[in-house]
Amino acid sequence: MNEFELIRRLTHDLPRHPRVVVGVGDDCAVLDLGLPDRWVLFKTDAVVEGVHFDAGALPEQIGHKALARCLSDVAAMGGEASSALITLGLPTAFDVARIEGVYRGLNALAARHGVAIVGGETTTNPDRLLLSVCLLGSVEKTRCVTRSGAQPGDALFVSGVLGGSLRGRHLCFEPRLAEARWLTGHFAVHAMIDLSDGLAGDLRHLLESSRVGAELLAAAIPISREAKRAARERPDAKSALSAALTDGEDFELLFSVSSRDAVPLLDAWRERFPDLGLACIGKILAERGVRLRDERGVRPLEAHGYIHFA
Amino acid sequence: MNEFELIRRLTHDLPRHPRVVVGVGDDCAVLDLGLPDRWVLFKTDAVVEGVHFDAGALPEQIGHKALARCLSDVAAMGGEASSALITLGLPTAFDVARIEGVYRGLNALAARHGVAIVGGETTTNPDRLLLSVCLLGSVEKTRCVTRSGAQPGDALFVSGVLGGSLRGRHLCFEPRLAEARWLTGHFAVHAMIDLSDGLAGDLRHLLESSRVGAELLAAAIPISREAKRAARERPDAKSALSAALTDGEDFELLFSVSSRDAVPLLDAWRERFPDLGLACIGKILAERGVRLRDERGVRPLEAHGYIHFA
Repeated sequence: MNEFELIRRLTHDLPRHPRVVVGVGDDCAVLDLGLPDRWVLFKTDAVVEGVHFDAGALPEQIGHKALARCLSDVAAMGGEASSALITLGLPTAFDVARIEGVYRGLNALAARHGVAIVGGETTTNPDRLLLSVCLLGSVEKTRCVTRSGAQPGDALFVSGVLGGSLRGRHLCFEPRLAEARWLTGHFAVHAMIDLSDGLAGDLRHLLESSRVGAELLAAAIPISREAKRAARERPDAKSALSAALTDGEDFELLFSVSSRDAVPLLDAWRERFPDLGLACIGKILAERGVRLRDERGVRPLEAHGYIHFA
Repeated sequence: MNEFELIRRLTHDLPRHPRVVVGVGDDCAVLDLGLPDRWVLFKTDAVVEGVHFDAGALPEQIGHKALARCLSDVAAMGGEASSALITLGLPTAFDVARIEGVYRGLNALAARHGVAIVGGETTTNPDRLLLSVCLLGSVEKTRCVTRSGAQPGDALFVSGVLGGSLRGRHLCFEPRLAEARWLTGHFAVHAMIDLSDGLAGDLRHLLESSRVGAELLAAAIPISREAKRAARERPDAKSALSAALTDGEDFELLFSVSSRDAVPLLDAWRERFPDLGLACIGKILAERGVRLRDERGVRPLEAHGYIHFA
């Protein structure tokens, strides 16, 4: 049983509450706490030593990554982050200087995005360091973007470059809060998700929530230098395109807008964010599933990004 | 370096934000998100296998305890709980039926207190089960109670019975939400904390926040049957009174009110909650420190509940 099946099994019959605008199954929970114009965003995420970072990661990077993952989810809803609680699971023997470094990484990123660290707790997790972040944010009701609004005909966009993140980028990526705020302030974003599981997997989450399908243009997918280098160094391993589809931990924004907004969006983005790429990588279709178009034609993309060659 | 010293070191220079009414150092963070009459309460807490429960605990009890700990903190602020996120740290080999049992425990308690479980995540924590809960609640600005309002002359009260919780009560205690709401609705509660570290330790947290001291009346401290039984069974171990002062995990309410409210409060409590004890265990003093009065006189109580015999 994989993570998604387990979550489905645990959460399929949770009772509904009127204050819950969006519950399980989007980047953040969305709550109506009674504010006239805004909804509250609520998110938690954990990083575990040996799973999300290894013993060689700098302490500052561990703190940075833990908070940045949650911020990336707030970005994907079009929101702003507000306050965070930090849970430290400390191994039996821990180095105070290392934990202070973790907090320096947390604090620096929090300060850049106006996030107040308002508490947390320490607990023993005897075998390994664990860092869990709980984040509150908010978003104007008119600007909240979920995974479920993609419409047939929409153009599909992704920010930045994909693949090879585990070679280092995953420890120092900058969550796309400013970009997402600009997007929802200037364009009608129909659906959005942040890329943590890889384009192939997260696109499928967005499509399933929206009950649509998509066609990807292989040549348009922005592949990172690291993914290209990895493919050159190990020609027997996965191709650079496969890496961009499946490596995960990119923490870029994947979103759809009406096709008539596509060119104005690309032009405005290049002016506003000249140092960050934005690629139109395909289109939303009414027919379910994901197809990949390249110079040899159109083929189905398997669930986890495996490219099926007929 | 103990937990409290580490937290102090990590959080002493956190920047202040105008939306933070109460930050690090109380039972919950208190946030002003712009609601006219209410503040938002924000709390996280984790339980770890082998630390907060052992392998023999029923799965339902694990889920119950994880959420109940957070609810107890919301109670201590005089608040109501609203929404929760659940983080499951799953060991490499885990039993789906056990995790479903954990969720049954969570869901049953959440339903009783009107808490919406709005999401969460699963991660790998290879060596042991970890369950972290993040809770949102709220409280009327006029009814929010912190640790810092105790005043010299106040009467000090504790609900329930203390000591011996690890013999079983810690896995099935009911958080005192209804009692705390009733208290703040009918009396001016000056300061309140929930008892997780033991009366001696948590009283000291309340007193330090309030910059006051206290005198406890030994004969008035309500000692649980389990603590008395443990003291009978092992006369060489700690006394029943010591257990009530230091065992921890009681999750009862400790609070102070003006001395003129003491008798009306006891009378009204007995009528409203006939099945739950309320004991006046001492008084707040201007002089710092904790003193214990018994038939032999008044002596200082050491930091962690050790009773200093001159």
